[in-house]
Amino acid sequence: MILEIAQIDVKAGSEAKFEAGVKNALPLFKAAKGCSGLELRRSVENPRRYRLMIQWATLENHTVDFRGSPDFQKWRALVADCFDDAPQVEHVTQVLKGF
Amino acid sequence: MILEIAQIDVKAGSEAKFEAGVKNALPLFKAAKGCSGLELRRSVENPRRYRLMIQWATLENHTVDFRGSPDFQKWRALVADCFDDAPQVEHVTQVLKGF
Repeated sequence: MILEIAQIDVKAGSEAKFEAGVKNALPLFKAAKGCSGLELRRSVENPRRYRLMIQWATLENHTVDFRGSPDFQKWRALVADCFDDAPQVEHVTQVLKGF
Repeated sequence: MILEIAQIDVKAGSEAKFEAGVKNALPLFKAAKGCSGLELRRSVENPRRYRLMIQWATLENHTVDFRGSPDFQKWRALVADCFDDAPQVEHVTQVLKGF
């Protein structure tokens, strides 16, 4: 299991549009191979910064299967014009589940 | 509920020591006011980069109560010499629980 963490800074004033875009994109992620969870979080310190956190069974389910699919283009069409910069995407594995 | 995301880059070769330090610090976090969860994740793209993700009831439980407590000094004593840079700490709230 891999967690994708995408740090996304949106343009001032586009926060509501971005959040709606993510909500409207949920069926795309629900249908994506290996995708088992999605949540959107917003920074307290910088409210134009979001963290989109998506669970994938494997790295390739995100980087190959989803990014290579037509649904990736649909996803980007829903939110890309809100982006202030290119999203910073990183994948993390759990090494310790404390409690 | 607030999620603290601390991005921590550790010195080359200190990964195992850092992971053990976090494990040994678990009682400090379990005892901390408002702290309800902790997990440690490691970057796939940059294996010296970790994300320590800690659940707090309120922002102040982290920034005031924990950071102002003697246990914060004990926590740092366990891991600080592994740090390659100062940790980058941000707090996020959930705005959408997709699935």
